[in-house]
Amino acid sequence: MIRMATIGTSMITGRFIAAAAGVPAVAVTTAYSRDADRAARFAAEMSLPASSSDLDGLLSSPDIDAVYIGSPNGVHAEQAEAVIAAGKHVLVEKPAVPTEAQFIRLAEAASDAGVILLEAMRNCYDPALDAIGDLLPELGVLRRASLAYCQRSARYDKVLAGERVNIFDPALAGGALFDLGVYPIAAMLRLFGEPVRVLSASVPIPGGADGAGAALAIYDGLVVDLSYSKITASDRVNEIQGESGTLTFDHVAEPTSATLSLLDGTVTEHTFDGPANNMVHEIRRFAELVAGENDPTADHERTLATLRIVEQIRAAV
Amino acid sequence: MIRMATIGTSMITGRFIAAAAGVPAVAVTTAYSRDADRAARFAAEMSLPASSSDLDGLLSSPDIDAVYIGSPNGVHAEQAEAVIAAGKHVLVEKPAVPTEAQFIRLAEAASDAGVILLEAMRNCYDPALDAIGDLLPELGVLRRASLAYCQRSARYDKVLAGERVNIFDPALAGGALFDLGVYPIAAMLRLFGEPVRVLSASVPIPGGADGAGAALAIYDGLVVDLSYSKITASDRVNEIQGESGTLTFDHVAEPTSATLSLLDGTVTEHTFDGPANNMVHEIRRFAELVAGENDPTADHERTLATLRIVEQIRAAV
Repeated sequence: MIRMATIGTSMITGRFIAAAAGVPAVAVTTAYSRDADRAARFAAEMSLPASSSDLDGLLSSPDIDAVYIGSPNGVHAEQAEAVIAAGKHVLVEKPAVPTEAQFIRLAEAASDAGVILLEAMRNCYDPALDAIGDLLPELGVLRRASLAYCQRSARYDKVLAGERVNIFDPALAGGALFDLGVYPIAAMLRLFGEPVRVLSASVPIPGGADGAGAALAIYDGLVVDLSYSKITASDRVNEIQGESGTLTFDHVAEPTSATLSLLDGTVTEHTFDGPANNMVHEIRRFAELVAGENDPTADHERTLATLRIVEQIRAAV
Repeated sequence: MIRMATIGTSMITGRFIAAAAGVPAVAVTTAYSRDADRAARFAAEMSLPASSSDLDGLLSSPDIDAVYIGSPNGVHAEQAEAVIAAGKHVLVEKPAVPTEAQFIRLAEAASDAGVILLEAMRNCYDPALDAIGDLLPELGVLRRASLAYCQRSARYDKVLAGERVNIFDPALAGGALFDLGVYPIAAMLRLFGEPVRVLSASVPIPGGADGAGAALAIYDGLVVDLSYSKITASDRVNEIQGESGTLTFDHVAEPTSATLSLLDGTVTEHTFDGPANNMVHEIRRFAELVAGENDPTADHERTLATLRIVEQIRAAV
């Protein structure tokens, strides 16, 4: 049994706790927040046995084996370092850190400390994306794909009103690319591997973050366009076009269905059964790694590849 | 009454003749082809009174006022020059020519000869695209748009079999960008004006043409992605995302319906009534210009803007 604490009290941490309840190898026991009242309130809401506002105490506790970090992106690195230094395993919400170099340092620290570091990129561990990958050979030579995650955040209204909001704060690694853009990037890497080159453009908003953006990832004979936004919305499906057919699927971060339309007129619908909260998969993977059943090299490679693309997109702005 | 001849005997010329039948100011009287039998057969099929395989004779005939050019793209320029030199008006199928410089020369020649030159870019003259433009203010600040035309050509199978096919022949200005990509470009220019910068990537196929491609057009605060393909298919709608809502519409070259989804939950469906064959609109515009009711400066500007983007995309490959 991996006894876990959480850092962060926003919706994503709530979702993590709910998903972890479905993984027998894990028990979330303690909610941490700098604010003791908030920690206690959140622990009560999520039915956790304990709360804490003393990070050093939490990290030196023999009753905690691992920590999930769901705090604002900009403090992930520092908190992950502290967890690793305390000899505990760490599952850090995406994006783990803003740069490849930072993740390499973190991974080395984890390796030196003999603990597991894993980035919680939920679509990387969702079997539905494997199922989509399994359908690709039916499409023949792949030529074009469009992957997108565009969802307007209600908190954008606060930005427009002149307020500072974590998720739109560039100093905290906020913005559309970090928050939503990483999902289509991760899906693309999983389905097609690393591109040869990336072109991109961003839509800046007040406060300095990117509110939306788009990129073209260029492969040998294939071009993938990526689209992401936190200030506008889209319901369009994702799409992969091959010379023999076209596949669409509903959601790049949590696919539940796909439609395969072949050149010969055949249309087949595919639905992917799985838990509604697909964070379950990344938690299972984390538990498996902590149990020593595998090593995290491939997981780290995927995180690093995502960050390389994130950095290329950011450098182009 | 503008008495017209046609050059070219493929499907697009047939569609032009069918559309022209709905425009009282125009009468298509003669089908030209280098091959006399083909010209006669095509004229019979299209119920035209006459056919010709003698281009000089046709162009010197006092019974012809104007010519529609629907031949392979690579011979448009030479044929349009001949028509203009003969003192006849010319409606030339898109893309009129491959480069901005060539169209400038053609427009100057037309002006000097006192005849009308018009590029037949059908979505530029379709009122449905105006109707879409009229809905844009409801979307608030525009941030992202996706315009696409991806349709697999059966003739691609011939390319794969090693045959040379006009529409995929780079020497004849074939390929996906020239054939289909110009439609989303023209729609974009009409809806958003000229972008600041264009990034692009193409998918080369055997024979040297582009089989598909994608581009990002960058505006101040807005990014538009363009997608086109003749080797793969897509049924996805086009989309324009604003901060207050999202608009989707069915077809970038012949829009028939749109859905406006606003932030407040309001969803409205719009249908655009009009002739199924929307070449009617460009023929009406041509007739209006020939009648001297307006001058073609704005039309030429639009053609030139499209060609500037086409050239940027081609140069990037």
